[in-house]
Amino acid sequence: MQSVKKYDLVVIGSGPAGEKAAVKAAYFGYKVALIEKEHKFGGAGVQTGTLPSKTLKETALYLSGIYQKGVFGVDKEIGRATGVHDFLYRKNVVTNHMNKIVKYNLEKHGVDLYEGFASFIDKHHLKISGDLEQTIESKYTLIATGSYPYHPEYIPFDHKRVLDSDSILSITKFPKSICVLGAGVIGCEYATIFGAMGVKTYIVNDRDKILGFLDSKISEGLVDQMKKNDIKILFNNSVIDFELPDDDDKPLRLGLKSGETLNVDMFLFAAGRSGQIKGLNCEGIGVKTGNRETVVVNEKFQTNIPNIFAVGDVIGFPALASTSMEQGRIAVTHMFNTADLESLADIFPYGIYTVPEVSMVGITEEQAIETKIDYGVGYSYYRDTARGMIMGDTDSGYLKLIFEKKTKIVLGVHIIGHFATELIHYGMQLVREQKTLDHLIATVFNYPTLHDLYKYASYDGLGNIAGKKVKKAGELI
Amino acid sequence: MQSVKKYDLVVIGSGPAGEKAAVKAAYFGYKVALIEKEHKFGGAGVQTGTLPSKTLKETALYLSGIYQKGVFGVDKEIGRATGVHDFLYRKNVVTNHMNKIVKYNLEKHGVDLYEGFASFIDKHHLKISGDLEQTIESKYTLIATGSYPYHPEYIPFDHKRVLDSDSILSITKFPKSICVLGAGVIGCEYATIFGAMGVKTYIVNDRDKILGFLDSKISEGLVDQMKKNDIKILFNNSVIDFELPDDDDKPLRLGLKSGETLNVDMFLFAAGRSGQIKGLNCEGIGVKTGNRETVVVNEKFQTNIPNIFAVGDVIGFPALASTSMEQGRIAVTHMFNTADLESLADIFPYGIYTVPEVSMVGITEEQAIETKIDYGVGYSYYRDTARGMIMGDTDSGYLKLIFEKKTKIVLGVHIIGHFATELIHYGMQLVREQKTLDHLIATVFNYPTLHDLYKYASYDGLGNIAGKKVKKAGELI
Repeated sequence: MQSVKKYDLVVIGSGPAGEKAAVKAAYFGYKVALIEKEHKFGGAGVQTGTLPSKTLKETALYLSGIYQKGVFGVDKEIGRATGVHDFLYRKNVVTNHMNKIVKYNLEKHGVDLYEGFASFIDKHHLKISGDLEQTIESKYTLIATGSYPYHPEYIPFDHKRVLDSDSILSITKFPKSICVLGAGVIGCEYATIFGAMGVKTYIVNDRDKILGFLDSKISEGLVDQMKKNDIKILFNNSVIDFELPDDDDKPLRLGLKSGETLNVDMFLFAAGRSGQIKGLNCEGIGVKTGNRETVVVNEKFQTNIPNIFAVGDVIGFPALASTSMEQGRIAVTHMFNTADLESLADIFPYGIYTVPEVSMVGITEEQAIETKIDYGVGYSYYRDTARGMIMGDTDSGYLKLIFEKKTKIVLGVHIIGHFATELIHYGMQLVREQKTLDHLIATVFNYPTLHDLYKYASYDGLGNIAGKKVKKAGELI
Repeated sequence: MQSVKKYDLVVIGSGPAGEKAAVKAAYFGYKVALIEKEHKFGGAGVQTGTLPSKTLKETALYLSGIYQKGVFGVDKEIGRATGVHDFLYRKNVVTNHMNKIVKYNLEKHGVDLYEGFASFIDKHHLKISGDLEQTIESKYTLIATGSYPYHPEYIPFDHKRVLDSDSILSITKFPKSICVLGAGVIGCEYATIFGAMGVKTYIVNDRDKILGFLDSKISEGLVDQMKKNDIKILFNNSVIDFELPDDDDKPLRLGLKSGETLNVDMFLFAAGRSGQIKGLNCEGIGVKTGNRETVVVNEKFQTNIPNIFAVGDVIGFPALASTSMEQGRIAVTHMFNTADLESLADIFPYGIYTVPEVSMVGITEEQAIETKIDYGVGYSYYRDTARGMIMGDTDSGYLKLIFEKKTKIVLGVHIIGHFATELIHYGMQLVREQKTLDHLIATVFNYPTLHDLYKYASYDGLGNIAGKKVKKAGELI
């Protein structure tokens, strides 16, 4: 008779949430197993989502040189025609390398790795289907199975030029033009990547705003930048009909709600993802699930079954690699009372890796109005800082501070521009620690750096509330 | 009879310190004049020092492409031979533009501008010598005259290939090889710029360490990187003899203290600057001066003559554009009791724009030992972060945290690598606010960003003090 292996923790999925949780539990001395259904480790964070798109963005910046054009008086070129192979080269290097890094990290910490598809037999037993079928026993189980691109029925994904955010990573030919359906994070990131590569790009968006959770001024700023990069956004519209030729050289004909037809070479559906719980047998053992195939958890990331936890994309919002990792670590704290990390800072940043990047922390101006805060704003522009001038940023980047008028406490920071996803962290610390504009102007930053934006925006904000502003927004004091 | 114009404040010098002071006083409604002896505004910060060298560094990175080589699988080239004109192009764009920006900023705020050389007649009157000779009267005077490259007598600066950090900006031919004397900030920055451009570069350094104020591990890390970029450092050595041919094609023969001879195409002296007080007549009116032609001030930046203040390089250490600007603003606070900014945060960063960049804040490990703090350290490496992997950083960059063992409070942050001068600011906030490693690990950073370095270094530090480190320094948890 086969003896059933017993674990303190079984983690399902090797994405950012699962990896960090497994490693942490092992580090604290617990016996841990991890089950991965793919041949590669890292999940969407490494293999299909976060890192691939971020790497493609860097590749697009490099190949196109759009940030350097004209800046240094002499432009650089690639001595041959480039193609999709060059576009995907670095992405493949990064995902292959990170696959090894994740596997090495798990093995190094003594986590037992199982390749196969997991499903619950009962709340303490999991069946692993694969080349080798096995059953393992777990004291605790962590569901970190992630998400997959949502496929609405009316989209004909069987056509080879109709893609989702997974299949876009395996294109073999560069499109002449592309239509991206959806103006959320994934849609906007890919649209600006293709735009930077010189592909004629259309975004079809069913609302009148892109990235609805952003501060409106930043959202509008990104729309302006997209227009400059020749990306056309069709607002309040949708694709309702597909006429798809078999001939590779003929365009796809997309019928729009507006009555127009869009002729493009490629179609990317980027309007939502669903939790990956199919086949896991949550329903069979009574784990409560929610909308779009998510698992429902409490603030400890515990499901309604006390020894089963869930973290990452599979629990829904915010579904960011950054927060998912921490959810994994926190779930482990609660399982084993490691007492090192009880909860996350409730102030965390959003980073959107578009061209240019966008990042935010704290409240938007719309939220300030809605919650009736007596607030002030301050702006600063990359072009007015010495570092921005060296980089040649002439009009795209800016920082917006939102603060409480009476106390001058910083409540929100919003940045659009190069390195926005890095720059936001200093602002996060201000918001988290309730620092004031006075604190900011007494700060010394390295010079020249883009962090000067914080100081300039503070002076702008102080001028705004003092009513003695001698300059237009963005001019130096 | 000529009527003498009267001002609340006269500022001498339009560098970062003078500009910010003049604009601030004008903004608060005072009548302000500024005297500049050059035809261009901005002083060493804009015209000869900070921004030019930082721009040349960015140009060197761009032209050489050293950070991208091999990373994207296809290298970019410039379709023609490049020369010194290309090297200086962006620097000239930046300094010309910033000249206009500074002038515009001063004029916009209603500061009266005088072109000429200032000297004190008495403590309330200044003579301006120039095309138009004038006398003006001031309630307060701010000396912000900056510094100039120190010229020891034994260096033959009259030879056209013997340069200082001012004249290096006007070279008309690229050197085949260069010897840089001095391994301080200026020497190291220029050495790595020329090194990146492929120029065979030697540094002659009279000590056994470069940039003595850095944490030793970071200083050694920079030496390693210099070696990789084919820069040779001659430690504990100096140039004691010059044999300088008239023929442009023959090398300069530099006799070293070690007895060897160095044959190079160009020589750059980069071992110190002096305060710019010649002709100002400080001695005539009794303003107290110090070593290397500096002006002596108290914590309000006030000289021994109560209505005369001094800020910036002319008062000596730290002589950074970043601190100088704030000194200017603070001096104005104390003159007019504007009460907005009494003093600077005493925690501020050092940024060195070498290739790679170096930045630090708080204490070094040597200082921790010296002051008998019971400390711990944590390291993290760019190559282990996803962002570093995307960038292709394989071995150059790392971050070092120093913290008090008992409280886990962060006391020092040291970074070598791409964007170090930006990344340090988050760490500055930790040191300034006495945050702990526990605070850090509860933080969520955008993913992927280089700010992950902070979290990885925290885990490394916690592992070090817990004695349960399962990984080598730099491996992921």
